[in-house]
Amino acid sequence: MAMTMVKREIVCSDSQGFAAALSKAMKAVATSTSIPILTGIHIHAEGECITITGSDDKTMVRIVQKSIGKAIGSDPVSFVVPGRLFTEIIRKLPPGEMKLQIEENKVLIQASKSSFELKTMPVDEYPLRSSNPYTVSFEVEGSLFMKGLSSMYAASTNDMRPVLKAVCLSGAGNKLSFVSTDSHRLSQIHIVMDEEVDTFMNVLIPSTSANEMIKLLKDEAGKVHVQCNDGELRISVNGITFSTRLIEGTFPDTKRIIPQDFTLQFTLNREELFGSLERVNIMAQESKNKTCFFHLVSSGTIPSLNINAMGEEVGKVKEQVFIADFKGEELKFAINAKYFVDALRNMSSKKITILGNGATSPFIIRPVEDDKDLALVLPVRMVS
Amino acid sequence: MAMTMVKREIVCSDSQGFAAALSKAMKAVATSTSIPILTGIHIHAEGECITITGSDDKTMVRIVQKSIGKAIGSDPVSFVVPGRLFTEIIRKLPPGEMKLQIEENKVLIQASKSSFELKTMPVDEYPLRSSNPYTVSFEVEGSLFMKGLSSMYAASTNDMRPVLKAVCLSGAGNKLSFVSTDSHRLSQIHIVMDEEVDTFMNVLIPSTSANEMIKLLKDEAGKVHVQCNDGELRISVNGITFSTRLIEGTFPDTKRIIPQDFTLQFTLNREELFGSLERVNIMAQESKNKTCFFHLVSSGTIPSLNINAMGEEVGKVKEQVFIADFKGEELKFAINAKYFVDALRNMSSKKITILGNGATSPFIIRPVEDDKDLALVLPVRMVS
Repeated sequence: MAMTMVKREIVCSDSQGFAAALSKAMKAVATSTSIPILTGIHIHAEGECITITGSDDKTMVRIVQKSIGKAIGSDPVSFVVPGRLFTEIIRKLPPGEMKLQIEENKVLIQASKSSFELKTMPVDEYPLRSSNPYTVSFEVEGSLFMKGLSSMYAASTNDMRPVLKAVCLSGAGNKLSFVSTDSHRLSQIHIVMDEEVDTFMNVLIPSTSANEMIKLLKDEAGKVHVQCNDGELRISVNGITFSTRLIEGTFPDTKRIIPQDFTLQFTLNREELFGSLERVNIMAQESKNKTCFFHLVSSGTIPSLNINAMGEEVGKVKEQVFIADFKGEELKFAINAKYFVDALRNMSSKKITILGNGATSPFIIRPVEDDKDLALVLPVRMVS
Repeated sequence: MAMTMVKREIVCSDSQGFAAALSKAMKAVATSTSIPILTGIHIHAEGECITITGSDDKTMVRIVQKSIGKAIGSDPVSFVVPGRLFTEIIRKLPPGEMKLQIEENKVLIQASKSSFELKTMPVDEYPLRSSNPYTVSFEVEGSLFMKGLSSMYAASTNDMRPVLKAVCLSGAGNKLSFVSTDSHRLSQIHIVMDEEVDTFMNVLIPSTSANEMIKLLKDEAGKVHVQCNDGELRISVNGITFSTRLIEGTFPDTKRIIPQDFTLQFTLNREELFGSLERVNIMAQESKNKTCFFHLVSSGTIPSLNINAMGEEVGKVKEQVFIADFKGEELKFAINAKYFVDALRNMSSKKITILGNGATSPFIIRPVEDDKDLALVLPVRMVS
């Protein structure tokens, strides 16, 4: 069968600009092979606009750029190639002009005296998901949204209760709240936007997706556009779009478990406490319960929080951190060292306030400068 | 039993200076536990001189420093502690003064308001190997010696012939030679010293030790002091000593396999060829034999080396590199792509010369600027 082939070609002025865009999209490309087409990367060129899409069964990254290349002729050009191989090839091409010539089952890649022929994958099989209409849509400063997503550190990694593997996003007025909990600890971050949103609740972003989103977008300046519907959240900035399926189910009502009144309160320097806890944690990790023990002492010249841990067979450690603004009574309590360390690592304020209601009630950690945010840690019951 | 304890204490002005020295010695500390005492780190303090020793059954790192701390009193102080744990503790201490107080079965570590108690290991069990007298001893610029050791890339990783897992060091007059080979390829580096040595041959440094040596000492300026005897090589610079057991056996006579006369010779830009080979290697890695195919073409306007590889089921690649100073006839040959890439990566000259005697004879790669060094690569027999 003779046929007249229309020349389908993409010309890029710099192979390495194209490689940089590919690398971003590759972050979502599946490495496992349960659905082979998802190991491919989808390239679409229309005039001067190049769209690169990578996805797995949960997330998708799409890069739309006007500066990295153009399709020759008026027809759009689409193809799918093995993602890892294609990206490795483009990344290792000499810098400078590169041509992609798309033929029936292959793409020819040419740059300087280098010429590759790479088999393509069936472009019609690639699932360019169309989204249901978005019911939520707003713009917010990217760095604030990423800060909110960082609450994911407290999410569960256990498959038993999938809803706890999420960051729970809600919005009302000009406020967004992000909550994660694994039922032993909780992180809650509030951010304030320039605009108002219609109230929405219980958008469950997988914590793994939240992590990918932060890695992909943390260096992008400006506002991000966030949209979501029942099953998907999409975030776009500077021609980069990341979308993720949402987790189905109902997030626990965490308001119920965050105490509002406290009999105990004190303030500490965050970095000093963090340093002490990191050291105590070295020994706690050598113990069976990975627990560190706290003793609030108000009787000394300066009230202090004394911390200790015993490593089985290896040794022990004692630390002392001075505290201020102490209200309440002397107390002994025990906490999983890692939970406490994680909570402090994810705060940035100079000082923190710790609040509680005794050795068997949840402890709350609040940044002094940003007291809408909080971390909650359940204590470990002490054997007396 | 009452006893009067002599106070045994080491005072360090900066915990982080001590931590830096520990981290270096830790590079040799065993992570496996076949000989438990070797998971420990040996500390010896005598006046203002601190000696830190870490070792496994093959290598040893010893750090001798006069600025990081001092023993209180006139008696020397020695102890052994679990290496990983001790280093992690010291590294996380607040900067500033630190005290180590050595008691019968433990060491107390104090810095600011932090205080650790760490069980010690039996100091008498620690094997502070004494060395047989050294028969070889010389000083040489460290960067040159490290360059020589880099020939290890061509050493074997196969246990079948242990002597091939070595860098073979020999010396005569003011010259040192380093040779490694896995029997498919070979690397040979000559360096010239300021001083002369008595002739020695066949010092077989394990390539893994050569690699550790480079990582430990690459940033140390100045001359290194190298000593060896029948079973051990020791290298010292700036208070850091690295020693390694040698491999026993006789290294093959590599002079026999390096051809001296050639019917084929041409020169190329090293970086250009390296870039081409790296790209061809992407496809070669997708083929069964990981081979790339070469075609020397002298008939064009400019003589060139054409290179290609076929990736099974994924595609193929063609590259062209112009050559100069061509002597010989057109030729087709095949080489394992990775061997060629490794050889070029470990050279630094701008231009290289390739020499050979046909498609079934060894090919020699020489830096044009440093033609005492060479890499040898055996070709793959082509199916015609």
